[in-house]
Formats: sequence, C-alpha cells, structure tokens
Amino acid sequence: MTVGVIGLGLIGGSMAMVLKQQGFAQKIIGADARETHQNEALELGLVDEITDVFNLVQQSAVIVLATPVDAIEQLLPQVMNTVNNQVVIDVGSIKQKVVAAIENHPRRCRFVATHPMWGTEYSGPRAAVRDAFAGKAVVFCDVAQSDADALQTAQQLYQCLGMKAVYMNSADHDVHVAYVSHVSHITSFALANTVLEKEREEGAIFDLASGGFESTVRLAKSNAATWVPILMQNRENVLDVLNEHISQLRKFKACLEKEDDDYLKELIEGANRISSIIQ
Amino acid sequence: MTVGVIGLGLIGGSMAMVLKQQGFAQKIIGADARETHQNEALELGLVDEITDVFNLVQQSAVIVLATPVDAIEQLLPQVMNTVNNQVVIDVGSIKQKVVAAIENHPRRCRFVATHPMWGTEYSGPRAAVRDAFAGKAVVFCDVAQSDADALQTAQQLYQCLGMKAVYMNSADHDVHVAYVSHVSHITSFALANTVLEKEREEGAIFDLASGGFESTVRLAKSNAATWVPILMQNRENVLDVLNEHISQLRKFKACLEKEDDDYLKELIEGANRISSIIQ
Repeated sequence: MTVGVIGLGLIGGSMAMVLKQQGFAQKIIGADARETHQNEALELGLVDEITDVFNLVQQSAVIVLATPVDAIEQLLPQVMNTVNNQVVIDVGSIKQKVVAAIENHPRRCRFVATHPMWGTEYSGPRAAVRDAFAGKAVVFCDVAQSDADALQTAQQLYQCLGMKAVYMNSADHDVHVAYVSHVSHITSFALANTVLEKEREEGAIFDLASGGFESTVRLAKSNAATWVPILMQNRENVLDVLNEHISQLRKFKACLEKEDDDYLKELIEGANRISSIIQ
Repeated sequence: MTVGVIGLGLIGGSMAMVLKQQGFAQKIIGADARETHQNEALELGLVDEITDVFNLVQQSAVIVLATPVDAIEQLLPQVMNTVNNQVVIDVGSIKQKVVAAIENHPRRCRFVATHPMWGTEYSGPRAAVRDAFAGKAVVFCDVAQSDADALQTAQQLYQCLGMKAVYMNSADHDVHVAYVSHVSHITSFALANTVLEKEREEGAIFDLASGGFESTVRLAKSNAATWVPILMQNRENVLDVLNEHISQLRKFKACLEKEDDDYLKELIEGANRISSIIQ
C-alpha cells in the first residue's frame, strides 16, 4: 500500500524507512514544510516522492502525521476534511489536545491516536535510524472512537515496527508521559543550564564530564521546535510532576543541610527500587 | 610489580582486572572487609590472593585504595603508618577530606590523590569490566605534595588504563565533581523517587518507560554505601550546585505557569549548547 508521511524528522523519517524496508508500504509519499527536510528525505531514500499535504492525502491509504505537536493540532482537522476512507494516524507525544482538535469531526472514526514511545535527542531526516521503535511500547488512545478496520490497520503498522501495544485514554496517557518522558527532559535541560552557567567562570569543568553526566544530560540536546509545544500542550500535568520532582530534590537538600546520613540512605535505597522496573 | 588493591568493588575490581591484563601488575593482592567480595574477587580471577590490609601493604609496591570514601578517610592514615617506600594511590570521588586526613603525615609524599572519572551504576566485584577507564579523564590532585617518583608511578598506572591526566587542587576538584557527577546522581535519585511515588497509584506507568527515561534514571540504581559518604563529604559544594539546579528548574516552572513559549524556547536553546561539550 501507499503510506503518506507528513513531517519527515526523526520519527516520520525513521517510520518511513522501516515501513518500506519491512514491506508494509510499497510506496512512501512525504510532505514537510521545510525544503531542507524535503531534499534530505529524497536524497536519503526515505520517501519515493514529495508532494503537498492535499495530494499526499489523496494518494495514500494510510496517512501518518509526524510533525511537532502544535502543527499536528492545526493540520489534523484539515487532513480529516479531505479524507474519504483512508486511515489517519498521528504519532504525537501528547494526546488530549490532538484528539480534542477533531472531537466532533464527521470523519473522526478514520483517525487513530497513537504515541510510539521511542526517540533520540537528534532531529531531522538525517537522524532517522533503521533500528528505531523495535521492542518499545506504542500507546493507542481512545480507540472506541476509531473504526475497527482503521484501528486494525494501525495495529498492523506498529506490529510491523516491532512495537508492543498499550491501550489507555488520552487523559491518562498525558499524565503518564509527564512522568516518564517530559519531566526527564526538563531535568536534563535544567542540568545542562546549571553546568553551562558555571562554565562561564570555569572552562576546566568539561574535561571531567564522565559517563554519568553524559547519560543524564543527553536529552538536553533535544530541540526546541519539538519540545516547546509538547511541554506547553501538557503544561498542567508537567507542572504537577515538576512540583513533585522539586519537592523530592528538596528532601535530598534537607539531608545534606542536616547531615542526616540515615535519611539520605533511605532516599537512595528508595530510588534503587527503580531497578525492578528498568534493566 | 605487585599491586595491592584495597576494596574490590566496581572500581577496585575493574582496576585489578585491567592492570593485570595490561602487564602493569604481575601479581594482584586484594583486601576487602566483605567476605562475599573476597570470595567473588578470587573466583573471578580479579586477584591472585586475599590478605589483610597490613600484609597487603608489606607485599605491594603500589597500594590502591578503592573503598567507599568514608573508609578511605579512615584507612589512609593507617596505611601510611605502615608504608616504607611504596606508592599509595586513592581513587575516591572526593579529594579534600582524603588529603586532609594525612595532611601532616611524615609519609605524605608517598601518597598520590587521584580520581579516575569512570563508573557505572553497578557495584561489587561482579560489576568489574575489561573496558573500564579507557578514554576517560583521571584527576591528579595536589601533586606538589607527592614525591616525583610516586607521581610518575601513578601516571604510568593510569596511562596503562588509557586515561587522560588532568591536574588540579583538591578544592577545585570537589567543586567540579559536584557539577558533573554528584548532582547528576541526585537528580536521578529524585526522578526515580518522583516516579515511584506515583507508581503506588498507577502500575501502568512502567509500560511506557522509554529510552529517554531509562538514560536519565539509570544512575538511580547507584548504591547507598558508595553515595552517602560521597555526598556527605562534599556536602557544601553539592548544596551550592543543588540550589542552582533547583533555581534552573524553577525557570522552567515559571515558563509553564505563565505560558511563556519564547522564554521556554530560550531555556531549551541554552541547554542545547551542551552539544558542543558532549558528543
């Protein structure tokens, strides 16, 4: 079948690459607002052709929306206006505002809201990689509002990417991702800024940046075009979690201020329980 | 030569393994307060024999202190009391209190204070790995207080591990590691606790833990026996950096509260400058 991918960055580009490679798509049509992305995606062979959104929708059996989430919110109603019987899937990192954007649309049933939980700190078509997605979770949201055949097509697409399906409503999804993704990014951005503030005074600090630092601050390379809309669209959940995170940090601060070894040990051993969740 | 390693955990165990393998040591003698560590180190072939600290010092040309930093502070004066012309090296993550512990010791000149900037979130002899250390920085502190031949031996040891030497005084070292290592660990512990608090209510959250989360929270597996003494011995520097980090987090919080996209973009783009430092 022909798959149309709107937004040819890290996620859209990787998806185009793997869907073609795995035989899910015989042809990939791409659209992207940025000319450099269009050219790079063609050069890298991620897409067979580039066209505009209207033509892409007409020619594709499955349409994947993979732009930043603010653009998804704007584009989705336009795409749904031109859809007949095709299947439309978005891959945005937040779901409530996306789903709300077409809540009462007559073609709502042709849309499947999904979030493949994979990414790297890099962006653009050149960041696309072949081993993307496999083994990670994909969240399907509010599936009762999608036609059975549309859902099935989306499920087949993600099976083809090797992803594990998880189902929940879009409100729960947005709370969960605030915990497991959005606040990780904020702590990483903030840690980078903490160190970079210091660097104005002390150049030598970076000779010492070791493995631990690199892995904690890796996400701080993530780009603003992707992350400003994600954090803003999910701001209430993110604020809740961020407040909780700051209060957890204050507990560590209190231990150090009071030289309370026992409480510090307790906090660290509490955190060690994460070993049962991530390997 | 014969190298004695006191403390056969991740760092001591890995060092024993690599020094033997690279031919720096013909024989490795080990000491460890924990019987399980003694047995595991022998089983894994990390050491040729196990003895007590006194015998280890008598039989070794180079003595490496690789216990948690509170034990280094206690053991170092005892070790220096029994040293003749051997070289004593510690590998602790903080340096001021270690150096202060033997400041006026008559054999101070046989001691070289070092910090190899490598580690993983795992501990114990079984965590030792062959590709440890290579390409990372090792900090030598207050080298003017060490004999030239003792320093040279320590430099040769770390060259053999493939590490890049950096020189600074112990006070500067302790400030720098607060930035690039200690506060990374605290943010990771706190993030794990933030998520684990939530998990009491919501089991489903962990289906979603994706790559970004894993890398940010990886350090939260680090053990309390190592980290309580490090954070406590460096508490003043760590508190300074932690306060700065919390104030950076508050800037993100303010952006979200005020829905200030421009300021959020500016903060993220500021953090992106970390790309010029870590690859």
